[in-house]
Amino acid sequence: MSSQSEVIMIPPAELIDSINRGDNFLVATHVNPDGDAIGSGAAFVMALEKMGKKTALLDKHRVPEHYRFLPGHEKFYTFESLEAAGRKAADFSALILLDCNDPERIGLEKKQQNSAAEDLKTALAAGMPAFVIDHHETESAFGNIKWIEPKAAATGLMVFYLIKALDVTITTEMAINLYSAIVVDTGNFRYDNATSEVFRVGAELIDCGARPNKIYQELYETWTDNRFKLYLRMIESLEIRDDVVFSVITKKMLEETSTSADDTENFVSFPRMMKSVNVSVLFRETGRDEYKVSLRSKNDLNVAHIAEIFEGGGHKNAAGCKLRADIDTAKKIVLEKIKALQQN
Amino acid sequence: MSSQSEVIMIPPAELIDSINRGDNFLVATHVNPDGDAIGSGAAFVMALEKMGKKTALLDKHRVPEHYRFLPGHEKFYTFESLEAAGRKAADFSALILLDCNDPERIGLEKKQQNSAAEDLKTALAAGMPAFVIDHHETESAFGNIKWIEPKAAATGLMVFYLIKALDVTITTEMAINLYSAIVVDTGNFRYDNATSEVFRVGAELIDCGARPNKIYQELYETWTDNRFKLYLRMIESLEIRDDVVFSVITKKMLEETSTSADDTENFVSFPRMMKSVNVSVLFRETGRDEYKVSLRSKNDLNVAHIAEIFEGGGHKNAAGCKLRADIDTAKKIVLEKIKALQQN
Repeated sequence: MSSQSEVIMIPPAELIDSINRGDNFLVATHVNPDGDAIGSGAAFVMALEKMGKKTALLDKHRVPEHYRFLPGHEKFYTFESLEAAGRKAADFSALILLDCNDPERIGLEKKQQNSAAEDLKTALAAGMPAFVIDHHETESAFGNIKWIEPKAAATGLMVFYLIKALDVTITTEMAINLYSAIVVDTGNFRYDNATSEVFRVGAELIDCGARPNKIYQELYETWTDNRFKLYLRMIESLEIRDDVVFSVITKKMLEETSTSADDTENFVSFPRMMKSVNVSVLFRETGRDEYKVSLRSKNDLNVAHIAEIFEGGGHKNAAGCKLRADIDTAKKIVLEKIKALQQN
Repeated sequence: MSSQSEVIMIPPAELIDSINRGDNFLVATHVNPDGDAIGSGAAFVMALEKMGKKTALLDKHRVPEHYRFLPGHEKFYTFESLEAAGRKAADFSALILLDCNDPERIGLEKKQQNSAAEDLKTALAAGMPAFVIDHHETESAFGNIKWIEPKAAATGLMVFYLIKALDVTITTEMAINLYSAIVVDTGNFRYDNATSEVFRVGAELIDCGARPNKIYQELYETWTDNRFKLYLRMIESLEIRDDVVFSVITKKMLEETSTSADDTENFVSFPRMMKSVNVSVLFRETGRDEYKVSLRSKNDLNVAHIAEIFEGGGHKNAAGCKLRADIDTAKKIVLEKIKALQQN
């Protein structure tokens, strides 16, 4: 039996060269990091270290509790801890953006910066080189070297090829991170980005030491009892309108179950199990008449188009945005946009 | 990049020869067929037909509604429809047991046979050849040729290798069946039987036309609204005792939600999401003080050992049995056995 493990994604030679030449890299992932951002970041930094490079791994936000099983998660700096460690932007050969392609996504807003963020912004403006490694479709012009593969299921898949192209052997710790990144972005090999290539990379990562069962348990079967209570409250809030299902998590529910926003991860996916449901929408209250909206769809319905209307973003079947409205108006607006999209 | 798609499982040459030589096969799977039994059976019979063989595919029970998306599911006969079609045991070159290894598992009980079952039993007693293809560990001495691979994640994996060894090209329809068989028995690549080999076979089946996203949706995201109502009732019944969680489905719940036993499939897996839970036990009422007990465990706790005490069976992390007792006693007995097992 022959097997073709085709390398569909080839890292640009310019990127490989620049990484080989540099000696100190600041690797930054997007705000509110998910499993792909954290896993890709940790694995990539480990590989750079194997090459003898200095590194710093940066995210504006702390690694959420449920991702702290990932080896190397403790390498992440926030802007504050980066500053406290005395690491200056000037010390780095380049900034590498992972799983995002715009400096705003790593938390470099126009104002309200802390000083480490200001330092980085200033360095970039002064010509600090920046490389982008991402699988999100983009309009951003940012980056001196850009490697963007919208067809890649996860940034973890790209980092897998990149580490191999850099001639670094994938360790068990890297494999756990990259496998987890892929699991999170493919819904454990169930979304339509789960190609045969994804399965072959999964197989290689297992051979490098990733354990599918352990990783699945860490990602999806470590709910606290409180989180389960919150889940029951969410289920109670379900409201079905045609093929759209709404659910709501209020601040009060979080308080009453002693849970936090992190505990709501993946909740929006559950109602998809119903055959009649094509879109699942979860509203999480973030302030008075203010909601974080998570959207999940089946098949060809592109909910990223809905999120974009409200200045959010995401992928075809998983997207998110913010909305300022009371809950009834919010539901009404989102339902209208879904209906309009379905009629196209 | 090289990729090793090692063939760990090699079908016995004797089995290949005997299949090549025969011209008419009765392929039978176990009672209450699951996705592995149905998918393996349908794919295998399609391959035999490609070879120009006559076949009949047999299961005592009808294919459950939620597996009727599988191509070729309509090929299944029951004993009754086999008889009605005038297919006699004497016409077949051999009986092939798939996903089981004992004639009792296909419904050949000692008494209370219908006449097609009696006909088959008589033919076997008179020397009708029988081949066994299974991944369950076994003590049974049944079968002239036995190919049993307890390490195979699914019978579907074995049938994949068998079809290749028979030099039949895997069609899209076969791929959908084999991929589904593997998904069902690996919990969509999340149990600890999900080896790199399983992922590589998955990749090949995708290349042959299986669509992970579509298949996942058919298997797990086609709940009726009634099934969802039943799920809510099950969730309400949850009771946590240390690291064991009990849930109950009564006949009344099924009636009140217009659902059937088939609708409870996989319900027992849900409570595993809680970190504190190591064993999930679902009691489904089948009669007065009579329950079908489903057991799911995490890690190394072998619940098949518990099922065996009550003359049931299964795998390490997924097993089942029957119990005659009132619900409180049933819970008490099962909890005692779990505690005893945990102390070993």
